[in-house]
Formats: sequence, C-alpha cells, structure tokens
Amino acid sequence: MPENIADVLPSEARKIEELRRLMLDNFRLYGYELVMPPLLEYLDSLLAGAGADTDLKTFKVVDPLSGRLLGLRADMTTQVARIDAHLLNRDSITRLCYAGSVLHTRPSGLHATREPMQIGAEIYGHAGLEADAEIQELALGSLALAGFTNVRLDLAHVGVLRALLDDDPAAKRDENQLYSLLRAKDAPGLDAISQNYYPQTRKALLALPRLYGNIDVLAEARDALPALPGVQRALAELAALAAGALGRAEIAIDLADLRGYQYESGAMFALYVTGLPNAVARGGRYDHVGEAFGRARPATGFSLDLRELARLLPMAERKHSIRAPWGNAPELKEKIADLRKAGEVVIQSMPGHDNVQDEFECDRVLVLESGNWILKNLG
Amino acid sequence: MPENIADVLPSEARKIEELRRLMLDNFRLYGYELVMPPLLEYLDSLLAGAGADTDLKTFKVVDPLSGRLLGLRADMTTQVARIDAHLLNRDSITRLCYAGSVLHTRPSGLHATREPMQIGAEIYGHAGLEADAEIQELALGSLALAGFTNVRLDLAHVGVLRALLDDDPAAKRDENQLYSLLRAKDAPGLDAISQNYYPQTRKALLALPRLYGNIDVLAEARDALPALPGVQRALAELAALAAGALGRAEIAIDLADLRGYQYESGAMFALYVTGLPNAVARGGRYDHVGEAFGRARPATGFSLDLRELARLLPMAERKHSIRAPWGNAPELKEKIADLRKAGEVVIQSMPGHDNVQDEFECDRVLVLESGNWILKNLG
Repeated sequence: MPENIADVLPSEARKIEELRRLMLDNFRLYGYELVMPPLLEYLDSLLAGAGADTDLKTFKVVDPLSGRLLGLRADMTTQVARIDAHLLNRDSITRLCYAGSVLHTRPSGLHATREPMQIGAEIYGHAGLEADAEIQELALGSLALAGFTNVRLDLAHVGVLRALLDDDPAAKRDENQLYSLLRAKDAPGLDAISQNYYPQTRKALLALPRLYGNIDVLAEARDALPALPGVQRALAELAALAAGALGRAEIAIDLADLRGYQYESGAMFALYVTGLPNAVARGGRYDHVGEAFGRARPATGFSLDLRELARLLPMAERKHSIRAPWGNAPELKEKIADLRKAGEVVIQSMPGHDNVQDEFECDRVLVLESGNWILKNLG
Repeated sequence: MPENIADVLPSEARKIEELRRLMLDNFRLYGYELVMPPLLEYLDSLLAGAGADTDLKTFKVVDPLSGRLLGLRADMTTQVARIDAHLLNRDSITRLCYAGSVLHTRPSGLHATREPMQIGAEIYGHAGLEADAEIQELALGSLALAGFTNVRLDLAHVGVLRALLDDDPAAKRDENQLYSLLRAKDAPGLDAISQNYYPQTRKALLALPRLYGNIDVLAEARDALPALPGVQRALAELAALAAGALGRAEIAIDLADLRGYQYESGAMFALYVTGLPNAVARGGRYDHVGEAFGRARPATGFSLDLRELARLLPMAERKHSIRAPWGNAPELKEKIADLRKAGEVVIQSMPGHDNVQDEFECDRVLVLESGNWILKNLG
C-alpha cells in the first residue's frame, strides 16, 4: 500500500457508514439537498477559485478521450459551488450537502490519510449571519450526533484585518507580508514593518496576535482595535455566533487566525475534540467562491473528514445475529426471510464451515424441532 | 466537464443514496461485512489477477511520495479479494460487501459513465454451490429492493468449455482461438478449426453457439454434449441455480457466453431489466482470484452500477416539508428541533429570500398564534 493510504476494514467501515448516514440525514432535516460531484474534472475547472495549496494537493492525469489534463478532486467545496453557480442556477437560497472521497498528493500531516472522506454542507445566496449560524449549528450537531461531548469552537473573522488594511494604504501595500507575519505571530516583524502606518493600524496589528482566548477577547478587541465599521461588524458577528453556541461548546476567539484569509470572506470556525490536536471540522464564509464560475454568490459552509472522526470513536459493538443452517426447505427459507424483514441478521452456514465475523456475533441459532423452525439461545 | 463524466444533481443523488442504503442494509441482514478499499493503490497490486481489459481502463498517476506508479481503481472486486486474502486472513467463510466509485479511462459504452458507482457482495472460502445460490439471491434481491419487477436472469458456466478442452489435447492447444470463435458465434470458423478434434468435441463445439434459450436448453445440452464429469457438473449447477430463481426472474441459459472465461471459474450470471439492453448486474465464481495475493480461495460474488440503475428508476417524489421563520426565540428553536426529531424536514427562511428546492415541497408553515408555534397547511 502507498504511504498514508489504507483499506478500511469491517468494524471501522461500519462506524464510518453510520456516521455518514447520521450526518446526511441530519442535513436533510434542515432542507439540504444531496449532490454528487465527480471524482475527476478538467483541471482548470476543478481548480477555479481554489488556492495554490489545493493545486499542489491535486493528482493530475491526462484524459485519453480529450488529451486534456484532468484533476482528481482534493476538495469538494469548489465543486459544490460550481453546481450552485452553473447547474442549479437558482436566485433563491440553495442548501447543498455532499459526502465523498477526495485524494491528496501529500498528506496534510504525518499520520493523515491521503484519502479523506469529506462530508459537508453549504448554503448559497444569503449574505446575512443567519446562514453562518445555521452552518455552525449543523457542524456542532454533526459532532453531537457522533457522540462527542467536549467540543471546542474556535471563532475567527477575516473582516478585522480586511478593515484595517482597507483603511490604511501603507499597510494595504504590505498585505502579503502582514499576512505571513500575523500567521507566524511574529511580534518583532510586525513592529518593524508597521513603523509608518497610521498609529491606530500599528496598535491594532501589534495587538492582534494577543487577541486569543475566551469570549472576553471580544471586549479587549473593542479597546485595542480602531472603531472602523468593518471591525465593529466583525466583532458583532463573532459575538452573535458565540452566543449561538453557548452551552454546546467551549468557545475560543482568535482574531489573528488567518488560515482562510485568502479565500474566506467573513466569520470562520474550527471545531476541536478531546484527543486530537487538529481541528476535526472547519467552516466559514467564502462569498466570492462562485466568481470563478461567473456567478459570485454569498456562500457559507463547513466540512469534516469522516475517516478521521470515526477513528476517534470507540469500536462499534458487535451486532447480535442468528445462525441458520443451509437448506432449500420452503419453511426454512420463509422463516429466515421473516427474521431478516424484522431486522435480524441471519447468517446461513455453508456446509463444512464455521463463520467468523468481526461485526456479528451469533447469539442464537435456528433449529428444527418437531417440524418447526425455532430460535435457540447459544451458550 | 470531460466526456462521460457528470455531476449528480439532487433528485438523482437522492435515488442513488436510497438504493445504496437499501442494498447495503440487505447485504448486512445476510451477514456481509462492509469494507472500504482505497481509490488509489500501487498499480501492480491493483492489477494483480485482473485482466488486460482492466489494465486499459485504469488511470495511472505517479506517487510523489514514492515515485512509483499508482492506479485509480477501475473495479473493486480484486481489491476486496486482496482484503480477504491479506488482511482478514480467515480460514472460515468471509462475506464482504462494498460500495464506491470507480474510474474508467474509456467508457464501457457510448453513453456509459466513466465513474460508475460500484456496489457488490462477495463470499470467500466456500467452493460449494450454496455460495453461488446466496449471491444470486442477493443480486435478485437488490433489483427487487430497487423496485424492478421484470428481471431476466442469464446463466452461463465456464465449466462446459473447460471440460471439453481438458478432455481433448488438440482442442486445448487451440484454446485462445476457440474462445474468440465461440464469442463471435462463428460457425464456419468452428467447423474449420475442429476437423481433427475428437468427434464428440467437434459436435459439442458446433452445438454450443445454439445452446441458448430457456431452461429447456439444459436438456438439449445433455444430448448434444459428451457426458464428461465436468460438463455434467456444470449442467447440474445451472439447473439448481435456475430452480433457485424460479418465480423471481425469467431464466435464460447461454452455454456459449464466455464473457468471464478468462477469470471466472464456474457458474456466471447476468441480470437484465426492461429498458436497458445491457446487463445491470453481473456475478459469478472466480476461485483463483486470490492467487495473485498468495492465497487462492473459493470466491463468488456480484456487482452492479448504482448510477446506471438509478437512472432507470422514476424520479423520487418530493418530500413534504415545513417552512419556518428565522428567529432566536427558544420556543421556536425547540419546536423546530422537536419536529426534526420526529423526522420532519424543517427549512428555516433566511430574511429576504424564498426557498426553492428540487427535493422538498413545503406544504406546511410554522406560525406564531396567540403565543404558540403551530403548523398551518399551505395552499
């Protein structure tokens, strides 16, 4: 097997399949419609609107039919945005969800799989915070359905830095450098670069790396940051989203988290669970994702890797099942069919063999007594 | 979009998802354990035991981590055989099932997708006909679950030709030519090539292309073919399998069907439904599939393409759903949560927008009357 590629064996596959259904069913209860974009697309369409990261992660193959370059999807969100923009082409709100494998040329971490099973939900056509709140609720709900009780919600917002830079032409010219310095939380670097910015910009940039912590960070931010409309709107949105998650997750605010700065456009979140240092789910607003397809639409969504999430969960319990002999007697076949209709797993023995399964434990056996097929408990 | 590659939009995706669940759940009731092999493997492992057809259909990419050639699976059956041989390594019977996308460099037919969604079930470790019968029952059951009522079961058996050739060294030397002539049903060619075979072999080879039709073909075959043990066993197996499908499908026997001759080793079947000239499901015995992985095990299984099958089914009915206003009032949120818990799809309106969906039809609305949230019928 190639590195970071693996089979999923029965008990693990069962966990993944059950999580997949729970989450898709929950999305459906909120009105999200399932779509299935293809594994392969023309590379230019697949990477339209995606960043350089995604390009590097994408396997490329030549299409023998067209001679053109194809990409194997490394991420499904741009595909789903394309479906919203091109195929459904609705003016109204569109809620879409998806679940499928994606492939990465290189793993995201040392032990990360190169074939995550991405599942997610997206809402298009509404710029208001209601859409962000619904997506956040769905993401929290997905982890709750999976049985996670200690969840941390990290909230961030690209609007803070955007507003600071839009207000200060000197800082705006250094946008790429500032982005790198802030991601590295490089205080001396920020101090050096901001010498000739407006004093309020400089003060804000030096404060940002420290604006991390619980909900009180929002109050600190109101003091440390200039009262620009964009900054105020961002802080108000974060306060509302934090309120929406009260009682469902521990809340952390990180105003220097710029992970999605290049493609996100509003509030962003990440969900963490006990036992894993990396985020298990990520979401946020990326209103300009449809631009590459000629139809920019407000958009917000989240996704997670089902395989990684399932690995954190305890083994599923083995399902109790019934062993039955092989035979063509109509009464036997009917009895087995009835039991299966009632949801029982019935495993027919093939002559001369035992059955061994990971998933099933035969605790009853079907036997013929006085002309009737009856169930008997096993040892 | 590349040729023969397409998005699956909501109503079609819903049909596929529902079929997928129905079939996997049914496999589970028979004791089949779900496995998920990877999309990508080292090419040599992926093609071990597979034919030249599969090689041609397989997209190849270079692994940036190892520099070795990887293949994107074009078929999952060899992957599942590898899991049985290597990973589970059980001596007892193993029942496995799977569902996932496969990719083809070229479509199997003019309108065939290059990304079929293969679903199937396999049983390893039992050489007896009971395993073939169970697989046939599962395949017929899968189509019944999908709602198909007029199903034709085509039965064939590679044991007939094998027994004829093993009995006649002259014919055995011409195996590849005979295989081509029989597939082409080329009577003059068969007449020419068989001049110096044993008379009973020659008679049998000339008869084979005509041994096609309903169950009576088995009686004709007993007259036309020599009474070799291998021939008799094959005819008896076909008779038993035909009996097992009585009342569930129209039965056709084709003794010159050699489609799986290169890799199958016993009884083979294909299922047809009204409206499609090609088989919708194929199955059969291929006992030597594990050899490439160092552990030949008796094996029989079937698979079908969920996407093709779903296309034949009528559109799913739109699900009745409830429209609710947006709001943070705890009573509203609680009411919506309760409705969803009861299985109702509740779609919250985002301020300033209508909702339009393919899948859902809002026939009720949640309104506040005298301080209580109540459901009202629409239209």
